[in-house]
Amino acid sequence: MSVTAARGFVAAGGAVGIKAGGAPDLAVVATSDGRAVPAAGVFTDNLAAAAPVRVSREHLGRSAGLAAAVVLTSGNANAATGPSGLRAAERLCALVASGVGAGPHEVLVCQTGLIGVQFPTEVLGAVSPVVAARAPGVEAGRAAAEAIMTTDTLRKEAVAHVGASRARSVVGGMAKGAAMLAPRMATMLAVLTTDAQASPGLLHAVLRDAVDASFNRITVDGCTSTNDTVLLLASGEAGPVPGIRLGEAVAEVCGSLAEQMVADAEGATKMARVTVSGAASDGEAHAAARKVATSLLVKCSLNGADPYWGRVVSELGSSGVAFDLERTFVSYGGIVVCARGEAALHDRAAVAAHMAGRLVEITCDLGMGIGEGAVLTTDLGHGYIDENRTTS
Amino acid sequence: MSVTAARGFVAAGGAVGIKAGGAPDLAVVATSDGRAVPAAGVFTDNLAAAAPVRVSREHLGRSAGLAAAVVLTSGNANAATGPSGLRAAERLCALVASGVGAGPHEVLVCQTGLIGVQFPTEVLGAVSPVVAARAPGVEAGRAAAEAIMTTDTLRKEAVAHVGASRARSVVGGMAKGAAMLAPRMATMLAVLTTDAQASPGLLHAVLRDAVDASFNRITVDGCTSTNDTVLLLASGEAGPVPGIRLGEAVAEVCGSLAEQMVADAEGATKMARVTVSGAASDGEAHAAARKVATSLLVKCSLNGADPYWGRVVSELGSSGVAFDLERTFVSYGGIVVCARGEAALHDRAAVAAHMAGRLVEITCDLGMGIGEGAVLTTDLGHGYIDENRTTS
Repeated sequence: MSVTAARGFVAAGGAVGIKAGGAPDLAVVATSDGRAVPAAGVFTDNLAAAAPVRVSREHLGRSAGLAAAVVLTSGNANAATGPSGLRAAERLCALVASGVGAGPHEVLVCQTGLIGVQFPTEVLGAVSPVVAARAPGVEAGRAAAEAIMTTDTLRKEAVAHVGASRARSVVGGMAKGAAMLAPRMATMLAVLTTDAQASPGLLHAVLRDAVDASFNRITVDGCTSTNDTVLLLASGEAGPVPGIRLGEAVAEVCGSLAEQMVADAEGATKMARVTVSGAASDGEAHAAARKVATSLLVKCSLNGADPYWGRVVSELGSSGVAFDLERTFVSYGGIVVCARGEAALHDRAAVAAHMAGRLVEITCDLGMGIGEGAVLTTDLGHGYIDENRTTS
Repeated sequence: MSVTAARGFVAAGGAVGIKAGGAPDLAVVATSDGRAVPAAGVFTDNLAAAAPVRVSREHLGRSAGLAAAVVLTSGNANAATGPSGLRAAERLCALVASGVGAGPHEVLVCQTGLIGVQFPTEVLGAVSPVVAARAPGVEAGRAAAEAIMTTDTLRKEAVAHVGASRARSVVGGMAKGAAMLAPRMATMLAVLTTDAQASPGLLHAVLRDAVDASFNRITVDGCTSTNDTVLLLASGEAGPVPGIRLGEAVAEVCGSLAEQMVADAEGATKMARVTVSGAASDGEAHAAARKVATSLLVKCSLNGADPYWGRVVSELGSSGVAFDLERTFVSYGGIVVCARGEAALHDRAAVAAHMAGRLVEITCDLGMGIGEGAVLTTDLGHGYIDENRTTS
């Protein structure tokens, strides 16, 4: 269950010929009746933002935070494509708008794939039949989630109830993302829908917080993409809900999608959660955790299941936060391997057993304050390089 | 020719048993007569600085910038080793001081190897015979340069004349460093000597500038080590020289050693020089070049000889500097592949030929101002991971 879990939304996925070989490459999520509903977006802060990011931002501004549909394509990022790229993104929106009976500025657009290649506008003729096939239900949501996969090996879908588990209102979402996952947005697209009633302003606040606590707390390679987009649409069919409960449900869906992304990261064999406590502030804890989580040497050690904590303290010491080696503790799987900046006697077999698992827990206590933060990362192995060394 | 090229210096290298298998692991550079001479040091800014860094900083302070000898060991970083680590580094200095007839605070110490493992003090008994074997000349300098290698595959030595090529005064140096090479000091040790006459203050200014223009302009994995140290000692035997000429020679030696480090980086198959021009300032140009040079995706593309400039503009756009995609040009080997933020028609065969070479030149013009900067980096391939996934 994903973007069609909330009442008032339909979806479709199909192949229009952007990808070679007829793989699904176009998805649509729309309101059931083509009506524009409150919407919010969080976009990459990369200054080389792709055409679809520019177009979606502009549409949300012109519609004052309303949207009737989202169109997503995979196989071409439509980034670094100049004025023709912008025109192609606008034409895609116009086609979908006409299909669902909305205004062109009421359609948002997300694209993912190679940067710097003009979007193949000859595929636009195949868009309308996919839009026409939109439907409610699990199957339609699944088809949409499949059509946005690039190097993903699994569909990424999540649903959460707003408030009590049998509540009438739900939040559902789908995402794609397998590399270029970094703080301040991964290369990722995510669309969430809810049947809760909420204003564009509330949706934006709720989405911003949820993204900060989820997609901005994961990293695969530290790269911030040109196309990152997270969108949230609210049909209102389930009526009003407490804002705080809506926020929890949106955060739950974003959190689940973010974890699915790290678990399916390109070429990864392991995940690691780097938790820093005892920092001078939460911001410093997060900065230190991110430095450890993006370290090539730490990620190589994870690939070799080697609990080489020396690399962890070296990253902490160069992370720019308040740090005193003599106050620093490091644990793997809860087992202290470094106490007050020195090697601690520990059960090596227990640490080895923990390192052999799929999720490694690295915990660092800086002893400077009460700040806490965590970042989810992956190991770095041959698989990542093999996926990324050539685009052909 | 290296640290013994300048008159007034002797050196030695030998095995004391830090490394398994009897490989050379201790080097000494000293003044010929044990006299303390003007000296300067530039050290890591990692707050988890190793014991030898702390000891050397303190010795230079207590001696008011004078040193009679430098002792270097490889195989153990003596980092994250607490008070015992500091004592071990002090004992090493004291042994060398007694061997060369200097005060213990007139000896500086550099160590490299694994972090978090106590220094094996049982090897201290083998230090004095190595110190006693110190000698002038090429062979002695070579033995010292060999004894500081860790995963280096080649000795790193360089010599430059001060002023005219037949000048009486020279600067010589040796270095080690094969990974953890990053801006703001690589994991690297370097010792330079000169027979020019200069004050500690002049030496420090000259060394600081040379390090900024060389070791701080290279990156392998973006990690800043706990042990980085660059030292410069001046015997004065060739008499006074113009400060600017001394600076040029020191910069030349540092530049050569830095290039040798990148060329010998762990597991690398290629080097790339990322040059950014047209930035708002030199600082912004350097920051942007560093962002591109440390990008995992860009480094993977280099490994695959793939001129995927989309990753370059994406890194530029997220580097935090003033940037406008529509003004951006990217070239490989001088061939423009991206003009005004879009794909440019170009000779693909010529770019492929350039990418197949050992040194790739990536040039980015931001069109925002007159700032320029460059960073030397490597590709990222299986070799780096294989060298770093386990320490055993």
